[in-house]
Amino acid sequence: MSLIVVGTVAFDAIETPFGKTDKIIGGAATYASLAASYFTTDIKLVSVVGDDFPRDTIKDLNRRGIGTEGLQVRDGEKSFFWKGRYHEDMNSRDTLDTQLNVLADFDPVLPESYQACEFLMLGNLSPQVQQTVMDRIEKRPRLVVMDTMNFWMESAWDELMKAIARVDVLAINDAEARQLTNEYSLVKAAQKILQMGPKYLVIKKGEHGALLFHDEQVFFAPALPLEDVFDPTGAGDTFAGGFIGYLARTKDVSFENMKRGIIYGSAMASFCVEKFGTERMLNLEQEEVEERVQEFIDLVQFDITLV
Amino acid sequence: MSLIVVGTVAFDAIETPFGKTDKIIGGAATYASLAASYFTTDIKLVSVVGDDFPRDTIKDLNRRGIGTEGLQVRDGEKSFFWKGRYHEDMNSRDTLDTQLNVLADFDPVLPESYQACEFLMLGNLSPQVQQTVMDRIEKRPRLVVMDTMNFWMESAWDELMKAIARVDVLAINDAEARQLTNEYSLVKAAQKILQMGPKYLVIKKGEHGALLFHDEQVFFAPALPLEDVFDPTGAGDTFAGGFIGYLARTKDVSFENMKRGIIYGSAMASFCVEKFGTERMLNLEQEEVEERVQEFIDLVQFDITLV
Repeated sequence: MSLIVVGTVAFDAIETPFGKTDKIIGGAATYASLAASYFTTDIKLVSVVGDDFPRDTIKDLNRRGIGTEGLQVRDGEKSFFWKGRYHEDMNSRDTLDTQLNVLADFDPVLPESYQACEFLMLGNLSPQVQQTVMDRIEKRPRLVVMDTMNFWMESAWDELMKAIARVDVLAINDAEARQLTNEYSLVKAAQKILQMGPKYLVIKKGEHGALLFHDEQVFFAPALPLEDVFDPTGAGDTFAGGFIGYLARTKDVSFENMKRGIIYGSAMASFCVEKFGTERMLNLEQEEVEERVQEFIDLVQFDITLV
Repeated sequence: MSLIVVGTVAFDAIETPFGKTDKIIGGAATYASLAASYFTTDIKLVSVVGDDFPRDTIKDLNRRGIGTEGLQVRDGEKSFFWKGRYHEDMNSRDTLDTQLNVLADFDPVLPESYQACEFLMLGNLSPQVQQTVMDRIEKRPRLVVMDTMNFWMESAWDELMKAIARVDVLAINDAEARQLTNEYSLVKAAQKILQMGPKYLVIKKGEHGALLFHDEQVFFAPALPLEDVFDPTGAGDTFAGGFIGYLARTKDVSFENMKRGIIYGSAMASFCVEKFGTERMLNLEQEEVEERVQEFIDLVQFDITLV
């Protein structure tokens, strides 16, 4: 079932306690679409890059079944660039440089072939752009998942509220959920966010796992305990891509199936952090994915029969 | 099956973002034995208090099946006192005052009636005292669980290593596991700790749950997402008491049963933090405990069938 992924396709420069990189391929939509490509091959990207972006990378995406008709390549302009440094805990980071470049005036044009999409992943972008994408899809998708970040809460609150009100699933991290609601308790934050419009809320807690809220229900999935986390960049986007990719493959948007999606998303994220950048996400075997999911089952399953 | 709980019985004064208390009842052995008392009624306390400690509290413990023959009451002396302030995240705290008082020269005397114990919980105390207790039990218990803290790593390393080498389960928090091994990765820390002697390692991560390691196996249980955490004091001890209490009740020290113990321990800890001090732990109904365990099942259970 077709899935549109909207978000950044970009360059990152990353420092972690394990090393640092020059400009490498990054971007929320890159990670999300790569993760989703292990579940469905009908993925359509909406993004913009400059002519500095390597054609080989676009071919890599195409080879994984990711359509790039909606990926604008702007001549004479430069791609979005982010540079950051992670602290030892890998859960916090400093932004060292942000160059919007082509993203500054991004107009998300949707090719005609994108119109029949049933699943829509709105990666972190300005809430105006996120709304424009929803406006331009004539028939509302079955499921819209949206990410955002603190920057938009501070600079575009009203537009952000309008965007959030229109989506089915908001998928943000714990700090963002707290900032969005001014509640420290994630349970209270979730109650407030579910009043803003979304029927489902995913709170990503990095190495501490993820929570899924819906009505009075809550589901928790841990992150896989790993010997080393080399680079958390893109882990949240990879998680979201695995989540919506799994839902698109199974064509089932029930709470029970979303739980499975959370597990598959967590499994994909656990691969992402094992190498710098997108390296690990380009060449996974299906068997590795299944083995990783089995590790999650083993990690949390227990057998208690209450009488 | 009989369980000895060794540790502090004390006064605490606590500040959290929700309020502050004067001197209230606290202590690792108080919390651990109260939690265990919901699973087994054959519990024997080893500790020391001054004559400032309320007799009514001792009667409360007795009413819950906790034997206090091994609780020394020292005339003319004062009980151990700790004062602390929690930060907003409730996962970190500052110690404002520590008065060792009767604990300064505590000699853990074991009454003869304690000799047949099969389960031993060594709450956080000096590793010399922890070893003395093990020395004085003639027949080694079936299972010894030990807690410790950073203070002993800094002041009594060699004795700590000797104590750790003799126990079956070490149950410490994430910061302590990192300090004990100089490894940031909890997976690597666990590998090192399992080389120190214990066959099982429990790493308590507060609101982020708990991990159980054994050989190559790992199990994770989340903390219950709560609307409010009023006071985390004693949550780790309550967790450990619920864990060993469940094992003592079921007389089964297999890895599979320890997983269940982790869930029951987590359930007990989720009650502990709902009120200041020991208040919530004194009058739980068995039914509440079972309902809480059901919430944990609902929180983490999912259904994925891999082919």
